[in-house]
Amino acid sequence: MTSSTKTLYKSYIIEEYHPTQEPFYLPVGDEIELFEAAYGQRIPVLFKGPTGCGKTRFVEYMSWRLGKPLTKVKPKKGKSDDGDGSQNGRELPLVTIACHEDLTASDLVGRYLLEGDSTVWIDGPLTRAVKAGGICYLDEIVEARKDTTVLIHPLTDHRRLLPVEKRGELIEAADGFLLVLSYNPGYQSALKDLKHSTRQRFVAIEFNPPPRDIEAKIVEHESGVDAPMALQLAKLGEKVRNLREHGLGEGASTRLLIYAGKMIQAGIKPRRACQVAVNWAVTDDASVQRSIEEVINSIFE
Amino acid sequence: MTSSTKTLYKSYIIEEYHPTQEPFYLPVGDEIELFEAAYGQRIPVLFKGPTGCGKTRFVEYMSWRLGKPLTKVKPKKGKSDDGDGSQNGRELPLVTIACHEDLTASDLVGRYLLEGDSTVWIDGPLTRAVKAGGICYLDEIVEARKDTTVLIHPLTDHRRLLPVEKRGELIEAADGFLLVLSYNPGYQSALKDLKHSTRQRFVAIEFNPPPRDIEAKIVEHESGVDAPMALQLAKLGEKVRNLREHGLGEGASTRLLIYAGKMIQAGIKPRRACQVAVNWAVTDDASVQRSIEEVINSIFE
Amino acid sequence: MTSSTKTLYKSYIIEEYHPTQEPFYLPVGDEIELFEAAYGQRIPVLFKGPTGCGKTRFVEYMSWRLGKPLTKVKPKKGKSDDGDGSQNGRELPLVTIACHEDLTASDLVGRYLLEGDSTVWIDGPLTRAVKAGGICYLDEIVEARKDTTVLIHPLTDHRRLLPVEKRGELIEAADGFLLVLSYNPGYQSALKDLKHSTRQRFVAIEFNPPPRDIEAKIVEHESGVDAPMALQLAKLGEKVRNLREHGLGEGASTRLLIYAGKMIQAGIKPRRACQVAVNWAVTDDASVQRSIEEVINSIFE
Amino acid sequence: MTSSTKTLYKSYIIEEYHPTQEPFYLPVGDEIELFEAAYGQRIPVLFKGPTGCGKTRFVEYMSWRLGKPLTKVKPKKGKSDDGDGSQNGRELPLVTIACHEDLTASDLVGRYLLEGDSTVWIDGPLTRAVKAGGICYLDEIVEARKDTTVLIHPLTDHRRLLPVEKRGELIEAADGFLLVLSYNPGYQSALKDLKHSTRQRFVAIEFNPPPRDIEAKIVEHESGVDAPMALQLAKLGEKVRNLREHGLGEGASTRLLIYAGKMIQAGIKPRRACQVAVNWAVTDDASVQRSIEEVINSIFE
Amino acid sequence: MTSSTKTLYKSYIIEEYHPTQEPFYLPVGDEIELFEAAYGQRIPVLFKGPTGCGKTRFVEYMSWRLGKPLTKVKPKKGKSDDGDGSQNGRELPLVTIACHEDLTASDLVGRYLLEGDSTVWIDGPLTRAVKAGGICYLDEIVEARKDTTVLIHPLTDHRRLLPVEKRGELIEAADGFLLVLSYNPGYQSALKDLKHSTRQRFVAIEFNPPPRDIEAKIVEHESGVDAPMALQLAKLGEKVRNLREHGLGEGASTRLLIYAGKMIQAGIKPRRACQVAVNWAVTDDASVQRSIEEVINSIFE
Amino acid sequence: MTSSTKTLYKSYIIEEYHPTQEPFYLPVGDEIELFEAAYGQRIPVLFKGPTGCGKTRFVEYMSWRLGKPLTKVKPKKGKSDDGDGSQNGRELPLVTIACHEDLTASDLVGRYLLEGDSTVWIDGPLTRAVKAGGICYLDEIVEARKDTTVLIHPLTDHRRLLPVEKRGELIEAADGFLLVLSYNPGYQSALKDLKHSTRQRFVAIEFNPPPRDIEAKIVEHESGVDAPMALQLAKLGEKVRNLREHGLGEGASTRLLIYAGKMIQAGIKPRRACQVAVNWAVTDDASVQRSIEEVINSIFE
Repeated sequence: MTSSTKTLYKSYIIEEYHPTQEPFYLPVGDEIELFEAAYGQRIPVLFKGPTGCGKTRFVEYMSWRLGKPLTKVKPKKGKSDDGDGSQNGRELPLVTIACHEDLTASDLVGRYLLEGDSTVWIDGPLTRAVKAGGICYLDEIVEARKDTTVLIHPLTDHRRLLPVEKRGELIEAADGFLLVLSYNPGYQSALKDLKHSTRQRFVAIEFNPPPRDIEAKIVEHESGVDAPMALQLAKLGEKVRNLREHGLGEGASTRLLIYAGKMIQAGIKPRRACQVAVNWAVTDDASVQRSIEEVINSIFE
Repeated sequence: MTSSTKTLYKSYIIEEYHPTQEPFYLPVGDEIELFEAAYGQRIPVLFKGPTGCGKTRFVEYMSWRLGKPLTKVKPKKGKSDDGDGSQNGRELPLVTIACHEDLTASDLVGRYLLEGDSTVWIDGPLTRAVKAGGICYLDEIVEARKDTTVLIHPLTDHRRLLPVEKRGELIEAADGFLLVLSYNPGYQSALKDLKHSTRQRFVAIEFNPPPRDIEAKIVEHESGVDAPMALQLAKLGEKVRNLREHGLGEGASTRLLIYAGKMIQAGIKPRRACQVAVNWAVTDDASVQRSIEEVINSIFE
Repeated sequence: MTSSTKTLYKSYIIEEYHPTQEPFYLPVGDEIELFEAAYGQRIPVLFKGPTGCGKTRFVEYMSWRLGKPLTKVKPKKGKSDDGDGSQNGRELPLVTIACHEDLTASDLVGRYLLEGDSTVWIDGPLTRAVKAGGICYLDEIVEARKDTTVLIHPLTDHRRLLPVEKRGELIEAADGFLLVLSYNPGYQSALKDLKHSTRQRFVAIEFNPPPRDIEAKIVEHESGVDAPMALQLAKLGEKVRNLREHGLGEGASTRLLIYAGKMIQAGIKPRRACQVAVNWAVTDDASVQRSIEEVINSIFE
Repeated sequence: MTSSTKTLYKSYIIEEYHPTQEPFYLPVGDEIELFEAAYGQRIPVLFKGPTGCGKTRFVEYMSWRLGKPLTKVKPKKGKSDDGDGSQNGRELPLVTIACHEDLTASDLVGRYLLEGDSTVWIDGPLTRAVKAGGICYLDEIVEARKDTTVLIHPLTDHRRLLPVEKRGELIEAADGFLLVLSYNPGYQSALKDLKHSTRQRFVAIEFNPPPRDIEAKIVEHESGVDAPMALQLAKLGEKVRNLREHGLGEGASTRLLIYAGKMIQAGIKPRRACQVAVNWAVTDDASVQRSIEEVINSIFE
Repeated sequence: MTSSTKTLYKSYIIEEYHPTQEPFYLPVGDEIELFEAAYGQRIPVLFKGPTGCGKTRFVEYMSWRLGKPLTKVKPKKGKSDDGDGSQNGRELPLVTIACHEDLTASDLVGRYLLEGDSTVWIDGPLTRAVKAGGICYLDEIVEARKDTTVLIHPLTDHRRLLPVEKRGELIEAADGFLLVLSYNPGYQSALKDLKHSTRQRFVAIEFNPPPRDIEAKIVEHESGVDAPMALQLAKLGEKVRNLREHGLGEGASTRLLIYAGKMIQAGIKPRRACQVAVNWAVTDDASVQRSIEEVINSIFE
Repeated sequence: MTSSTKTLYKSYIIEEYHPTQEPFYLPVGDEIELFEAAYGQRIPVLFKGPTGCGKTRFVEYMSWRLGKPLTKVKPKKGKSDDGDGSQNGRELPLVTIACHEDLTASDLVGRYLLEGDSTVWIDGPLTRAVKAGGICYLDEIVEARKDTTVLIHPLTDHRRLLPVEKRGELIEAADGFLLVLSYNPGYQSALKDLKHSTRQRFVAIEFNPPPRDIEAKIVEHESGVDAPMALQLAKLGEKVRNLREHGLGEGASTRLLIYAGKMIQAGIKPRRACQVAVNWAVTDDASVQRSIEEVINSIFE
């Protein structure tokens, strides 16, 4: 059924994916040094911070930086499964897993699948990262079920072991493997707490929204607007974050400021662009919307 | 068993479906320009607004407008699976998914199915849209389980990736792909909130019921009643919406006004038609029903 | 194992079932005209009303009336699957589905089943009605899970489409298809509310218990008692309904009055027949039972 | 593995089971006449009453009485499946189903099972009763899930139909079929209420513990004690039931009195027999136990 | 994978297991006579009592005593399935099932399993006991799900029937079969109550911790300490039980006293042995631990 | 797909895993003697204590000490399944299972899996330990579901039996087998209590964080910092634990102090290393973070 569409998209083998070009990343503090020290000692790392402040971009950047890739994986087209993508061992794979409350241990470790007459074991993404020696990034770990959280314990102490119980195996992680978690303490509730038996297995790096000048550079680079417009958007982001005491759940992320810049680039007037990309995106509350609108109007007069 | 009925209905391949005739759509504001700007920049879009105010019709209209289809997919009859429906790449497929709390990630991404002796992978509707490069419209996204919501995250940042973990694949979306969500902030509750980590990945367009004159034109066009009757029905819609402070959960949608018009066309008296198509359809509360009845009687004397 | 019992029962193919004789139905108001108008315009219909006041009988009657069947489907005996039941297209199939909280989307749409070496797709009852162009009657819709409710949305707007996601198909309903829902607003609670996004897709017809003289005629016809006895039973029904303010959850339905009549026909004394068929059937509360007993004794002195 | 034990037990085909000897049953009122009238008119019957007051025994008795069996089904030994048990159609099968909250619709209706290379449909006990034309006795119906309760609706109106959706079939019940439910209003709670849409499909017969002289005759017949001892045990039962206002959830059933009689027949002293068979069996509450002990001591001095 | 370890352990067929040597059991009252009387009349038995007071040991003893085994089942080594364990019918098998909230009816009755190309029915432990005519001991019955509890109802009245619905069979229990339940009324809560419809099917024997002199003999026999030390340990048990009013959930069981004795035999000082085997094992509450420590110190000065 | 990565990692058969080098363990009290006494008498052992105080390391140490391994299991490379790892019976396997709320009985005992045309039974990790005669360490037992907890009961009394109900087998544990549980009483809640029927089957050893001088030696050995720095880190650990009354859920574990040491070894300044490895890792609360920061600053001036 999908034969006529197979050339429109690219596909990768999960454990061979890694950034092939340097991701655009502007450091805010010593996070690069901290991550390099932890990686050198193979200490698992926990990223803490709000939505959209660059955690995902940072782990991509570190994967590129630590991997110093020499060759480029050529994308696998359509459905052909001949895995001749050459991985020369010098690149650092990055396996990203978005956690959610229905993610099972089998989703991470693997499962048996019927293929024709025989049953075939398919490694899950965590097992793939453990075997390939890459970074495994578990995004929003507090969303995961307890079995997922517990599963990573033996991988985060001196043993670096992954039990694959359905196969009666213990896998010792390849040398390059490191586990990285992210979570947003702002969401933290009694039910969704990261247990001490889990969190005391990581060094923690706290992330915050970038300062105005750095954020402006990011917006300029990513959206294509000029520097003064980017600065105004960064100013907007800063001011909206200050509204958090006034009933706003979470401030506007850098991503939304970039969206506003892109809408402006596409010809939408700045005030309208900020309304749809920032104001309406951030809240449904009419009175908070009025406050943000005033901020927008004060910047884009 | 179904052999004798096979010629009564039409069937389409999901990712080849798209409107083949211009859907009737009357714009209320700059929503067409906003959507075109977002689509041009491939920024995901969130529609916010109440039931039945035209969100589904609008996405169909934009799919038709952006796709400018030159040829018409010929419907696949009965159960024959020879997929010779020619898709020339210039049309923009529209894949609509009604979200609900039991929708699983597998429902969206795909699953293995036994076919005879062998196991066959069947792409889910999201994967089909990603591969075919169409618009994927997730209707009522807050109804979805968290795993569904999280699944779309990597599709909505710069990576545009869909992980298909059961196959160990990452799929990079075809160029035409865009994710569009809808949700109704009126239903928003603590349990069914759209998380910030999700909503800050979209520009948002707010929808409201159309003003009286536009709604009258829609009712006239869709139900076949004449212009004065359509205007009276639009007036009824407007007045019923004003009753919302008096215990009415949600006002009458344009769709119900069209139903009333169609019942009138079928010979039912206006007052009775409005009673069954608007009043009884909108509420079960006897006192609210009396209020609406008064409104009906004041319009259709 | 069932070989010795196979001639004792009849079996039908679901989508070929329709009333073959005129069901006994006495109209109370203009419900026949309303339904015919809605069916002519293919507007989905919602029946509202309490238990046992004739909703199921009415949809059967309308199916017979609109179908004007010329020939009779011959029942399929035992397990033989040769589906030569001739359906000439002029009859209107009636597919009834009793909703409950465990009814899944697959139960309605269909599923793959292993048959011997190969997997066979079996259409669910909704798909059967969509393909055969019949009336699909979803009884007690508020009992259904949300995935069921959402599934019917695209079938109830201008598209008349049923997505069969496991097969990657969209089915456009055959011309005769109409969706009819029933629900009992008396049961309506916060948890079991019919959502506005669902209810604003239907015209609504409200049902109430029939007035005394009509109910007496029904009881007389269905139970075989004579007219005076039937009138007394109808009077009993009316009076018991008036007890609803005194702790009785729901009044006695017409069906229970018919049961009382049948018990009387079988030789049980009227007072005793009303006790087991009405009083004990309607409530377990001793004080309410005493009130009803007084009513029974006052009528059947 | 079970080869050495195969001759120790008997096994029956479910829908061929029926009492082959007259069950011992002493009527308390006109329950036999009421049941015969209802069965003659094929009106479904609801038994209401507390634990252990003879509802199960009564339905067995009525199955025997209405069936007037002429021949005896010979038990099927071990695992041999050759179903040559001759059922001549004059006996009335009795299919008993103990309801519980995990009983699914498939448990009642049937399911597909793999057998070797092919899939075989296995009728559930309800389908077996429907096809064989027997009494289907659903014990403790309020324990059942909603899908089970709803399933029986079309079997209890004029249609007498059982939808077997997985096979796309509607089965019309064989002539002898009747549905009988039991439930204990004492357990009735908001969550476990029998819905009106279900209960108004049955005539109801209320059961109470038998009066002292009848209960004494039952105890004498079933346990083998002499008449004076049986009367003392019946007196005990009566007095313990009167303690219900003093914290006792439910009084001692006739069954427990029979147990006490049997323990006495086996040589245990009456006081001790009543302690283990009645007092300890009925309650764990020390103060209630003391009250019952006083009653026992006052009777068996 | 397990080839190198196969000679290290023994394995038995479940329904052939029974104690082959007389279990050490010291009766406290007339429990042996009561059980023999109930077994002789095939009245099901309910054991009530706290943790570790000998219920499991008692049912093993009764199984040995009633079975008077003449020969010894020779253990089946490794995985060989040739069931030549001779069971001469005079022994009384004992099938023990530890109940828990996830135990399903299928776990007890049996299920179909694929074996190679064909499907094989595997009897569950309850079916095995029913067929083999053994004692089936359901430990901690209140932990079981309702479907499990209901399943045993027809086995506990005069019918002694087990419905095996997946096979369409009713099994009549072999003559030796008896159902024995245990439960701990101390755990009894609203949610985990033994329903009257279940408990009124059993005679009940209440168990309590043994008196000091009997407990001392048990500790002496099982742990190997001398009589004076055993008496001191029994004294400790008695005193700790008296602390129950002071915040201790449940007193120390005889088993823990035996553990203390064994630790002493292994060279640990009595005070320390009692600390790890009794005090720390029984509670985590620091203040309760201090109270128990005082008791220990007062006995082992 | 994984062919190019197969040489990067090691894998072991679960029941052959055991520490091959003496794990670094510094005893705090008589825990080694207690464990040896319990193991000699085959009394199951319960470890109680907070996160990261060395329970896992201790069981590894005891497994090494009691096993006195003479030869080294050679790791199995990649996926080759020829199990020639020579286990001479003198080593003591250690099977560790991290418990969680989704761990099923089948996960522990084993399950049938399809392999090609036939079904193969795969022993779970508990069965493997029972058969191989190793230590089975169930970490965080209170997280497990009730079926898991109940499953271990017959393994912890005199019978040492594991019922494998899906195979109709009872397995008697090999001589070397011992069950060891761990749990953290600090997490203990009403819902996650270790039931008395479970806990009274174990002797209990309580663990606490090591005293400052021992902890300093551990930090020195594991992280590579010099003795004075290790002592400062141990001092930090001690002081942070004293903050527990000030809103800190749980103090810093030894593991986090080792992480801080390793970060220092990798060139990060001590204050910053302690911030990321101790302060941010331990809490998200800003005021608690300030308190810990003061402690850090007072130590590393």
